[in-house]
Amino acid sequence: MTGAASGADRNPVDWIAVDWGTSAVRAWVMAADGTVIAARHGDRGMGGLSRDGFEPALLDLVGDALPAHGTVPVICCGMLGSRQGWAEAPYAAVPCAPPGIERATRVATLDRRLDVHILPGIRQDRPADVMRGEETQIAGYLAGDPGFDGVLCLPGTHTKWAHISAGEVVSFRTFMTGEIFALLSQSSVLRHGLDLDGWDDAAFETAVGDAMSRPAGFAAELFSLRAAGLLHDLPGPAATARLSGLLIGLELAGARPHWLGQDVRVIGSGRIAQAYRSALAAQGAPVKLVEGDDMVLKGLAAARAAFAGGTP
Amino acid sequence: MTGAASGADRNPVDWIAVDWGTSAVRAWVMAADGTVIAARHGDRGMGGLSRDGFEPALLDLVGDALPAHGTVPVICCGMLGSRQGWAEAPYAAVPCAPPGIERATRVATLDRRLDVHILPGIRQDRPADVMRGEETQIAGYLAGDPGFDGVLCLPGTHTKWAHISAGEVVSFRTFMTGEIFALLSQSSVLRHGLDLDGWDDAAFETAVGDAMSRPAGFAAELFSLRAAGLLHDLPGPAATARLSGLLIGLELAGARPHWLGQDVRVIGSGRIAQAYRSALAAQGAPVKLVEGDDMVLKGLAAARAAFAGGTP
Repeated sequence: MTGAASGADRNPVDWIAVDWGTSAVRAWVMAADGTVIAARHGDRGMGGLSRDGFEPALLDLVGDALPAHGTVPVICCGMLGSRQGWAEAPYAAVPCAPPGIERATRVATLDRRLDVHILPGIRQDRPADVMRGEETQIAGYLAGDPGFDGVLCLPGTHTKWAHISAGEVVSFRTFMTGEIFALLSQSSVLRHGLDLDGWDDAAFETAVGDAMSRPAGFAAELFSLRAAGLLHDLPGPAATARLSGLLIGLELAGARPHWLGQDVRVIGSGRIAQAYRSALAAQGAPVKLVEGDDMVLKGLAAARAAFAGGTP
Repeated sequence: MTGAASGADRNPVDWIAVDWGTSAVRAWVMAADGTVIAARHGDRGMGGLSRDGFEPALLDLVGDALPAHGTVPVICCGMLGSRQGWAEAPYAAVPCAPPGIERATRVATLDRRLDVHILPGIRQDRPADVMRGEETQIAGYLAGDPGFDGVLCLPGTHTKWAHISAGEVVSFRTFMTGEIFALLSQSSVLRHGLDLDGWDDAAFETAVGDAMSRPAGFAAELFSLRAAGLLHDLPGPAATARLSGLLIGLELAGARPHWLGQDVRVIGSGRIAQAYRSALAAQGAPVKLVEGDDMVLKGLAAARAAFAGGTP
């Protein structure tokens, strides 16, 4: 657990925002005026917790910030709302607006200072798809751009493409691109030839193009990365960028119906978000990169505002 | 190490065949008449051995079968011939016949009863590709069918497609299908919904067709497997077969130039070889399944026969 606190004595705690994923948890202790009193993160993700482990883990994370008396709303999103999580928050079904506080599942706690609400994820029956957490990032984006009509791309372990219109998620699709990259780069024969801290823009661009024009060659192009290392001394940075480009190119080819002719926002940060942006731009798609680090907090804040009966 | 021996006293050892891969090693103690005196396998693959660890590992495996006097030829193929192996056996380049004993690398040993020869693998410069071990399986197949003109498919961790004509490997391509299946089924989020002992023919066939017609959808179809488990209770055997079908379908789409209009032999055994055979047959490809367990031994025996100046 790490964190930073400021002004806790002067600015009373109004609510707590929590993004609880499979492998990590983030929490923000918030003042009524929107100030972040403290930001915390921990590694006790949903995947390692039994049902009765969530409350102690939450208290470990933010218990020191709770007032001695009174009740603090705790508004949560993410995998803690899954069947194996703290309490199931049943999915909303597309088409729907990102589910707000009125659809949240309320959780009973032993510590009466906590008033925990878990926001639901979103489901889509055909093609079968689910999200938990990204709907709150989408809510955060829409809080700042309520009239947006287009496509949101949220790169990550499981990259989401969501078609947004009239404030609703009309449809969406998840690609396992990030998880496949992690497995191939850390655990496959390809790991020998990569330099995960390196990068090569030209190799990335070429690979995106190769995968988009011949997506079926994916598994053979992967092995060629290994062979090119053995036969032609392909440098590690170029191999890393090419692996990323093959995966993102394959995804862009599959996601073409989602982004073609659409206004696209890539919500994210760091190298991976830049890679999606540049790959889409190279295809002539009108695309903007939106800093994603605080998008989930904006979405939780929108839910808090509705809960309070106020406005964001 | 496990093994079986018979008749060692009556039938003198003529030579030893060794297939030394990254993670395992197999050895056969052979009589001059082709009888297998003993078959051994061990788990000390090339990946876990330093250069001077190979001779002791070989002696652990077959030392008891060596005669007290005299020298025994040991003919080897596989990853022990790589740069990180026992001794590098430089690749032959396509187009070429599977390299025989005359191209083998001879290794000096401390134990003078051993006369070790390592057969080279095959390389292809463009597209970059390599094989080590499969060329000896190909030699084994050609020993029994020297006039074969068509395509050999060798399913495995890294599935090979080799175009054979006039006794030569004209070109080949490797697909990382088996390794991707292993990573996804054991280490990805999909593992929760699979039953690796189960199978479902109809789910496999549908998935092959889906991937062949829409290869770019691969990473999204994968996540749909997870979502269909959560939303629609997709049974584990169907999920396993569909995962396999998506991967093999993607490969067949990418390998189409290799098998379309060709006479295809799938060399292998078990469920995976059956899956390739049935997927190819469903595409109307003329395909036969060839039992693959002893193909590498047949290839090593062909090299031994040439070494002895005899005929297979």
